Amino acid sequence: MNTNRTQPYGKIEPLNEAAAIEARRRVDQLTKPLGSLGRLEELAVRLAAMTGNALPSVTPPGVLVFAADHGVAAEGVSAYPQEVTVQMVANFAAGGAAINVFSRQIGALLHVVDVGVAADVEVPGVWRKKIRPGTGNMLREEAMTLDEAERAIRVGLESAEAIIDEGAKLLIIGEMGIGNTTASSALLAALTGAQPDELVGRGTGVDDAAWERKKAVVKQALDRHRPDPDRPLEALAKVGGLEIGAMAGAVLGAAARRIPVLVDGFISTVAALLAVRLNPGAADYLIAGHRSQEPGHLHALRALGMEPLIDLGLRLGEGSGAAVAFPIVEAATRMIREMATFESAGVSNR
Amino acid sequence: MNTNRTQPYGKIEPLNEAAAIEARRRVDQLTKPLGSLGRLEELAVRLAAMTGNALPSVTPPGVLVFAADHGVAAEGVSAYPQEVTVQMVANFAAGGAAINVFSRQIGALLHVVDVGVAADVEVPGVWRKKIRPGTGNMLREEAMTLDEAERAIRVGLESAEAIIDEGAKLLIIGEMGIGNTTASSALLAALTGAQPDELVGRGTGVDDAAWERKKAVVKQALDRHRPDPDRPLEALAKVGGLEIGAMAGAVLGAAARRIPVLVDGFISTVAALLAVRLNPGAADYLIAGHRSQEPGHLHALRALGMEPLIDLGLRLGEGSGAAVAFPIVEAATRMIREMATFESAGVSNR
Repeated sequence: MNTNRTQPYGKIEPLNEAAAIEARRRVDQLTKPLGSLGRLEELAVRLAAMTGNALPSVTPPGVLVFAADHGVAAEGVSAYPQEVTVQMVANFAAGGAAINVFSRQIGALLHVVDVGVAADVEVPGVWRKKIRPGTGNMLREEAMTLDEAERAIRVGLESAEAIIDEGAKLLIIGEMGIGNTTASSALLAALTGAQPDELVGRGTGVDDAAWERKKAVVKQALDRHRPDPDRPLEALAKVGGLEIGAMAGAVLGAAARRIPVLVDGFISTVAALLAVRLNPGAADYLIAGHRSQEPGHLHALRALGMEPLIDLGLRLGEGSGAAVAFPIVEAATRMIREMATFESAGVSNR
Repeated sequence: MNTNRTQPYGKIEPLNEAAAIEARRRVDQLTKPLGSLGRLEELAVRLAAMTGNALPSVTPPGVLVFAADHGVAAEGVSAYPQEVTVQMVANFAAGGAAINVFSRQIGALLHVVDVGVAADVEVPGVWRKKIRPGTGNMLREEAMTLDEAERAIRVGLESAEAIIDEGAKLLIIGEMGIGNTTASSALLAALTGAQPDELVGRGTGVDDAAWERKKAVVKQALDRHRPDPDRPLEALAKVGGLEIGAMAGAVLGAAARRIPVLVDGFISTVAALLAVRLNPGAADYLIAGHRSQEPGHLHALRALGMEPLIDLGLRLGEGSGAAVAFPIVEAATRMIREMATFESAGVSNR
């Protein structure tokens, strides 16, 4: 699909160091003790480096929720039946889900993308980009073909471009897909070599028996497919998910446009890691939104060297944790854009 | 001033358990896995208990910034000269300080109250409630008289009532006063019996020599005045500050009106502790906004049994950390008010 082997999904520019230096200088002139706004100061400087603008802006943010189903749901790895995926897509379209509520709070553009829901999605407003009606059950077959994996990434990339064209200045990536913590655990193990027992959590809240089953499923799938950590696209095809591929593509699409990406929880962070494995330059454009309760999230964050902004025991997905964290990112940009300097305010700087 | 010995600054009602139970029931019906919104769920239930409304609202919030000077600043305990207090009051009035920026972001009502700035404050919009032009130097005399301490509390209480009458549904308390981490450290040691060495931090960022001086000053002041932990008003008078007393009064005023208080950092939390020592019922209405870099903050939080919402290395004061944390509290109320239930959205609940 793309002949550029080093940056197969679009060129990602390095950070703009000049903008970062200018931002740091301004932050140190604002009417506050040096360094007293802690991580907000670091964020402002990083956002300047990402956007190339010493006075960066992140409003309005854009939220993309990718929905898809998972063949592995048939193994009883989730607390909810598969039809909840399509029911929740309808809930998104009606504005009643957590991500709708938090998106309204932060004034976000929001789009829901069907990249592989098993049922027909006939809901107005949902972007119809279905590649196949759910993945194959990774216990018996590859989740998808290599071509489908590439197409999933492409859907995400194009969705990011579309919401950026609409005006989004920062991208939040979220998902819905019953069974997708199982796929994310398998993909994370595939990409990092970590042991499934350390990664697999209770997802939406399975009981002990289902949790044991979930761990066994991930182990068996990895044993069957033996994904090569140096072939991330193949790993996605073998044990990943359509929405996970699309989220990775959205990260690549945003990074290529110098748009910061605010990563949500476990599944979103695994997708971000996949994006970085596909194009390491994407790492510069990531901000970790929140620390999820899902145990694998810590591994994914470590693999990316990221420290989340908030830690509130959330484990919902949909992009909800990132949306709740967004005002902190906005505060960083408002700080550097709006605060007076010692000189302009006539305040003694020691 | 008040003959009610058990609740000397207004009656504070207990939490409304019926509203809390109703809120908990609703939270468990919302379209999300049980418990998956973590601390947002706890917050929603606590806000219901505080306000007596199972669908609580916290917008618009109100921010009160109390400004005062400290005689102890003459001992070289701050990185900034005393005139910065009045300069920053002018900066608040002009809208250029961090608390202005973050207040605009969250749509807050904001008032600045001069409760004891050393210089004349002739800035339009600032509430003029000066009790005296700065406290006495606690190393040589009591910071204020018992009557002045009571008046400071009363100024805070009445300021809270005024901003609540204006429409504030949640109160953020902030401060400005060069030298006030020294006074807060001394008052916290007085109220808890903790050792000054464990509490005294670098405030706005003093060097090693000034830090040692600051610790010595706090120890000497405590040795001189020997405040009794069971007489909180006397402790305030001996080693506290006018703005600290006013902040405590504001907490009492808000709690008496069932208005939740979002506490800022070190100074704000010491003031909240003082309020609770004056009237234990106030504790039910407190939410810890953020974890400050100042070492004494941890002690103050522990004394109140509170866990902050965010931890971003902030140490600015003014109410800024609480304002940055506010959108999380708002998210909790929007969750319970706006999210669909499984039944209303037609989503399978297992």
